[in-house]
Amino acid sequence: MTEASAVQPSHRGDARICRGCWDQMHVPIPIRGPLALPFRAFGITRSKMNPNICTICERSFRYVKKQSHVAASATILFADIRGFTQLSERIERIRLSEIVSLFQDRCAQAIWAHDGIVNKTMGDGLMAIFNFPIVRTDHAQAAIRAALDIQRLCAEALGRLQLDDLKGQPLGVGVGIHSGDVEIGEFSSFRSDFTAIGGTVNLASRLESQAEAGEILISRDTADQAGDLASGAPTRLLTLKGIDQPVAARVIVNQG
Amino acid sequence: MTEASAVQPSHRGDARICRGCWDQMHVPIPIRGPLALPFRAFGITRSKMNPNICTICERSFRYVKKQSHVAASATILFADIRGFTQLSERIERIRLSEIVSLFQDRCAQAIWAHDGIVNKTMGDGLMAIFNFPIVRTDHAQAAIRAALDIQRLCAEALGRLQLDDLKGQPLGVGVGIHSGDVEIGEFSSFRSDFTAIGGTVNLASRLESQAEAGEILISRDTADQAGDLASGAPTRLLTLKGIDQPVAARVIVNQG
Repeated sequence: MTEASAVQPSHRGDARICRGCWDQMHVPIPIRGPLALPFRAFGITRSKMNPNICTICERSFRYVKKQSHVAASATILFADIRGFTQLSERIERIRLSEIVSLFQDRCAQAIWAHDGIVNKTMGDGLMAIFNFPIVRTDHAQAAIRAALDIQRLCAEALGRLQLDDLKGQPLGVGVGIHSGDVEIGEFSSFRSDFTAIGGTVNLASRLESQAEAGEILISRDTADQAGDLASGAPTRLLTLKGIDQPVAARVIVNQG
Repeated sequence: MTEASAVQPSHRGDARICRGCWDQMHVPIPIRGPLALPFRAFGITRSKMNPNICTICERSFRYVKKQSHVAASATILFADIRGFTQLSERIERIRLSEIVSLFQDRCAQAIWAHDGIVNKTMGDGLMAIFNFPIVRTDHAQAAIRAALDIQRLCAEALGRLQLDDLKGQPLGVGVGIHSGDVEIGEFSSFRSDFTAIGGTVNLASRLESQAEAGEILISRDTADQAGDLASGAPTRLLTLKGIDQPVAARVIVNQG
């Protein structure tokens, strides 16, 4: 797993207290080491969305924030496997599940390395949030760096697969990123369903739907905060479903 | 909440043992009443995906099935709010969250009433599975009945909202349904992410993306198992992204 070590956030180390609870409330919740044991007895463990936050961040949002949702500035990233629908008609489901596992695991690795959370997984796709609950003022840059890692790690992992049924078609990932205001919280009375909603989320999703294999499409708002990461990236004018005006996106392709 | 009582599965009553564990393993896991208390102490509670199944069904899939995923025949339902992207650009996020909550709750109510599980929620959309873990040999019909309830309950709930920003545009829900073989299980090494994948899932999602507000688009495979529920429903030929051949879908509209 050479690619694993390449993106491990070793410069930060594994957090001993939940970085989300600390950033949001300045409350130290132990998540590693002996101090974490009594918390574990009460069901407070490391979150599956990011191992440096705890389940309080995701499952008890309304108790922490004293309201069911809050406004926040964030960067939203969507990624999915391009051509998965065609693929799912051609190859065995057992192979599909391998591909989905590789994709989900590599994406999580890349997103965690840059302090994002894997908020939703949906078969061959996922949605990540940057700047909540772990605060990163450079969240647009963090998301782009995660996207570059996603592209690199997935290209390595998916490229190794022997997929005769692809007939030479490359199996690749498309990513869409947008930064802006979102509403974060739980939007259902029947389940703890911690997520982000709003126009920012939908635009990120629409950008992703237009990304070709290997591409990262970022909005102007994300590009404006991206510094050097977006410099030189060509602009593409997109007509997106449900959005009245054409959207100018910047196209970033991982150069390896 | 008159609409609530209309779809409560009162003829079945609230299950005292997990219907999923019973149908899959013939093991009685208490989920209601005093016998459920010791199980609760071990973290086994009613699932948020369906209150008649337990968390063993979703969180411990690989321990129950002794493998990380299994093949199953199922009906997949996708639903989302039409025009939500436009809406999210026009109205306050706080109103958006109300709409999402209404939608999610009404959908869950309808899906549970017909023994489906709410497997994924994604902001203004969701995915449901019928015939797993609760076995329903008439899963295609169950899904269509759930879709009819979704349309009726959401029309009532969303119709009551005073949304001046909509400028007379109706706020409606689109539904897509397809039946076939899926791979069910956990497809990620880093999280318990119980879901279904495969071409069946993707086709259901594509059908939903083509459904207008108020419409339920069902595939031919679902229609073939639907009996009277699809009789008289017009056929629409669709060109779907990622699917080579045009797809003939049947269009069902709730007559109220």
